[in-house]
Amino acid sequence: MTISKDDKLILVTNDDGLYAAGLRALFEVMEEFGKVVIISTMESRSGMSQALTVKTPLRVKLLEENDKHRIYACNGTPTDSIKLAVNQLLERMPDFVISGINHGSNASVSILYSGTMAAALEGCLYGICSVGFSLNSFSPTADFRVCRNPIRTVIQNLLKEPLPEGVCLNVNIPAVSENQIRGFKICRQSKGNWKEEFEKRKDPMGKTYYWLTGYFNNQEPDATDTDEWALANNYVAVVPITVDMTAHWYLEKLKEKFNG
Amino acid sequence: MTISKDDKLILVTNDDGLYAAGLRALFEVMEEFGKVVIISTMESRSGMSQALTVKTPLRVKLLEENDKHRIYACNGTPTDSIKLAVNQLLERMPDFVISGINHGSNASVSILYSGTMAAALEGCLYGICSVGFSLNSFSPTADFRVCRNPIRTVIQNLLKEPLPEGVCLNVNIPAVSENQIRGFKICRQSKGNWKEEFEKRKDPMGKTYYWLTGYFNNQEPDATDTDEWALANNYVAVVPITVDMTAHWYLEKLKEKFNG
Repeated sequence: MTISKDDKLILVTNDDGLYAAGLRALFEVMEEFGKVVIISTMESRSGMSQALTVKTPLRVKLLEENDKHRIYACNGTPTDSIKLAVNQLLERMPDFVISGINHGSNASVSILYSGTMAAALEGCLYGICSVGFSLNSFSPTADFRVCRNPIRTVIQNLLKEPLPEGVCLNVNIPAVSENQIRGFKICRQSKGNWKEEFEKRKDPMGKTYYWLTGYFNNQEPDATDTDEWALANNYVAVVPITVDMTAHWYLEKLKEKFNG
Repeated sequence: MTISKDDKLILVTNDDGLYAAGLRALFEVMEEFGKVVIISTMESRSGMSQALTVKTPLRVKLLEENDKHRIYACNGTPTDSIKLAVNQLLERMPDFVISGINHGSNASVSILYSGTMAAALEGCLYGICSVGFSLNSFSPTADFRVCRNPIRTVIQNLLKEPLPEGVCLNVNIPAVSENQIRGFKICRQSKGNWKEEFEKRKDPMGKTYYWLTGYFNNQEPDATDTDEWALANNYVAVVPITVDMTAHWYLEKLKEKFNG
């Protein structure tokens, strides 16, 4: 693959692995916009958050190359993949880091656990315009085609004007048919938490083990300016995400607490 | 261990493992404030961010119990540990989740990768008053005793008035002698990034692999209201951290972008 200076270079990853339908749907749309380098794992690495691999060596393999894209398999986390690609594999800094399409919502606090969104945050830390896309469906037969036009619109908007420093986008798409989508809603992360329901089992040796399960609890179902509300009402939810986790609004109060 | 209704119940974890000197220093101070339940891994799980274990079963073992504390070993991430303790192991919701003392700084964007701070964020998502402590030293002979008085002050402050919903503290302590510490500085997360320098090697079979290495790059060394500045100037850096990653200041601009 040759990359001319007029080509947009787009780095694509996900946390559902190279065989995920969401990745294929994403990179086919990305090829409309430029040259695409895909890096991901053979198996899924969901729920990896922004984890780094520091105790075992990282390995990368070039699987496929044609004039439109190059596909690498990596044994690390989504964050490792972005770091490796930017530092070791790409000819130059990419114009975009695009992650997804995640198989399942990354709205509300799910962003904190999401490997898909961590890859977007990692791109953002490099100063690259970065977006994570997710489809709000865990169904094994989820149809990712509904995501194509929303993705095109987001990329077209970003081509006109990139995101400011330290900001990336968390885009969640409702799993409905295309004509049911009511448009875009720019919103904030909903307050919520996961209610865990560990499954406690005994192994054949009689020892206890646990599987993490649970369900999402939306703490503000009536607030209309949140990503959860937008998704539930068939809007594409777009949340600008910052890498700055400071609770700025609480700084002055906290100063009083420590000096009072 | 019996926990009376007047006892404070303190859940302690870290990402450096049960044998880490920082964990011991932390839980000895915590015993001054209440009954302590410690849960961590046998080996370190650094750089795990808020990763969850979803593909392999979780196991927990009670290692030690006396009237002041109970120690569990768990095979999961720091976030798994908090979830398991809160849902399966504790008699009631803890009054505090205290994580650390991390062997190395978690200031600036390191919070995004930190397992120690992820445990504090996880506690915060449960509505528990949560703090992560780190000592700014990677030296194998780092002396964690300097952390004891700063930790006491933080806990005493939080006993007077807990943190607001959705906020936890990231406390980084300079690795100097106690009389060199100039006090507390309430500050914001510094802008910065990690510069990667992967080490590319060949294994005995001639195949390439990589080790992730790198150094932290402070993007605003002159700003005096940041955690990096506080640490460099021998202050204990206290940053209030929010689980809400929305870039609120950018919401209106982004609406124009999508509607314009």
